[in-house]
Amino acid sequence: MNPDTAPLAIGYDDIIAAAARLAGQAHRTPVLTSTTLNTRTGAQVFLKCENLQRMGAFKFRGAYNALAQFTPGQRRAGVIAFSSGNHAQAIALSARLLGMPSVIVMPQDSPAAKLAATRGYQQGQAGSEVMLYDRYTEDREAIGRRVAEERGMTLIPPYDHPHVMAGQGTAALELIEDTAAGGPLDLLLVCVGGGGLVSGCAVAAHHLNPGIRVVGVEPEAGNDTQQSLALGRIVHIDTPKTIADGAQTQHSGTLTFPVIQRLVERIVTVSDAQLVQAMRFAAERLKQVVEPTGGLGLAALLCGVVAAPGQRVGVIVSGGNVDIARYAALLADGAV
Amino acid sequence: MNPDTAPLAIGYDDIIAAAARLAGQAHRTPVLTSTTLNTRTGAQVFLKCENLQRMGAFKFRGAYNALAQFTPGQRRAGVIAFSSGNHAQAIALSARLLGMPSVIVMPQDSPAAKLAATRGYQQGQAGSEVMLYDRYTEDREAIGRRVAEERGMTLIPPYDHPHVMAGQGTAALELIEDTAAGGPLDLLLVCVGGGGLVSGCAVAAHHLNPGIRVVGVEPEAGNDTQQSLALGRIVHIDTPKTIADGAQTQHSGTLTFPVIQRLVERIVTVSDAQLVQAMRFAAERLKQVVEPTGGLGLAALLCGVVAAPGQRVGVIVSGGNVDIARYAALLADGAV
Repeated sequence: MNPDTAPLAIGYDDIIAAAARLAGQAHRTPVLTSTTLNTRTGAQVFLKCENLQRMGAFKFRGAYNALAQFTPGQRRAGVIAFSSGNHAQAIALSARLLGMPSVIVMPQDSPAAKLAATRGYQQGQAGSEVMLYDRYTEDREAIGRRVAEERGMTLIPPYDHPHVMAGQGTAALELIEDTAAGGPLDLLLVCVGGGGLVSGCAVAAHHLNPGIRVVGVEPEAGNDTQQSLALGRIVHIDTPKTIADGAQTQHSGTLTFPVIQRLVERIVTVSDAQLVQAMRFAAERLKQVVEPTGGLGLAALLCGVVAAPGQRVGVIVSGGNVDIARYAALLADGAV
Repeated sequence: MNPDTAPLAIGYDDIIAAAARLAGQAHRTPVLTSTTLNTRTGAQVFLKCENLQRMGAFKFRGAYNALAQFTPGQRRAGVIAFSSGNHAQAIALSARLLGMPSVIVMPQDSPAAKLAATRGYQQGQAGSEVMLYDRYTEDREAIGRRVAEERGMTLIPPYDHPHVMAGQGTAALELIEDTAAGGPLDLLLVCVGGGGLVSGCAVAAHHLNPGIRVVGVEPEAGNDTQQSLALGRIVHIDTPKTIADGAQTQHSGTLTFPVIQRLVERIVTVSDAQLVQAMRFAAERLKQVVEPTGGLGLAALLCGVVAAPGQRVGVIVSGGNVDIARYAALLADGAV
């Protein structure tokens, strides 16, 4: 099929429908501006603060949108997910809000804080649990398949699912709505892991502002999507070494990649040192706690990887979940 | 004069007039909520995030409101202030926005970051400067008087001024407006240094919600206002040793204290360790960088100094200006 005309996994209507499902459940997160940031970049920058989303990241939007579409039978049996990161917490919280059991499969050596946070979101929901596995000797996919079959649970993947993509696209929808009074955005910067957020946002943005350029930002060490765009096919890489743990994906999805090919102008990369600079800037000037992955878009702009003088630029600040001791260490060592 | 009927320095009309002057200049800062905070305190908590105000603190509101009322002659000569803290930056920025010179008198051993920030806000405004003095051998009041006389400049004090108090009261005005849809607030927690913020907020709050209780929060080591309320007169103390540098005032003002006596139910105190707990909570759960003084109200609620189960509680988070290295150290050592 011609990739320029083949139907994409989601359209703008799916994002509008997701927004209706999320109303009253997700926060309409604030859009922050900073005179210092504008002066430094020469652009007019609008930061969509998904670090202030429920459970601290945009992932809630996709998870809730997916779970809200379960049939009554699916709801009774519940949801299963593999994740030690924001997707785990997003599924755990969304399931509880919708009154369904969740099983989150996590490595047994996950940080205690992450296990506690996930269990905290499951609290009060019968049938919910964190299931631990040994990542050196056990196969999480096999565990997941067995549990899903035994309990009739539905697996929700972190990005390669149309409902997840559409839910995540509501972040760009809100950003564009909330900045529309001043005119359209010229540029939108979005972090890229598996591509769920950037693909949803690109669909929303191009529908509302046909002239917008959507640029994805990956960590330097994990530029699989950049490589994939260059080669025109999904490239698989080893798990990249980067502090941007939310973008340590090995490849984009079969549903997300065609959207990226069609609607994302290009992918740029930033180094871990640039991410730390962005995190420090966010703390010092924006008073925002941003996790490394959440700083990808800001870092690209702040460090001049993307120059946009005179333009109106939207940036999705995707999350703020970072272990506080680690965060303190990054801020302290951050004079990079 | 009977303290119960004597006219106060400001009324509600002054706050409304201040709000009109600040429109388009000050940020209407967001009001954040946190399910975790609500669960932990049993209250419904609304955090007015003045750490997201221009220059990072509520002080901008008072400074701009004062300077905007200068006569043409006063504007030409400009403004002078003594401060090494948020008031300095608030005056410097407001003066530049209004196109007038500012002289900020600061100790020569002020942290380089604070000097740079203040000079940054003065940039591009002719006649503006930071004037350094040696706090061990020189008298800043004498320096200020001399410069003010020589240059015809107007001194704006950090809190004991009706325009400053009225401007700062707009923080509570906005908070109450933005939460009104859910009903009136039962309780408002405000940090107390010299009393400018709490007095302005108390006037706004009592006008809009006559049944509200306004509670001030001081650092344990600097409870001069608590003592003053007990004795019925302004008590002077030595400069208190506390990490809440914005509340290291030695006494409340002759204009602020009568308002506090009339409209503030009581003053409670929190320890430095409780402030660090609040800062950590703000970073971890709210993703907000809060300076120690900015965490006074939150600490009182979070640590149970003030209990408000079942109530709707407003908290002014007053600022986010903290040296990042120091902030990182406080977060890292924060398991208090």
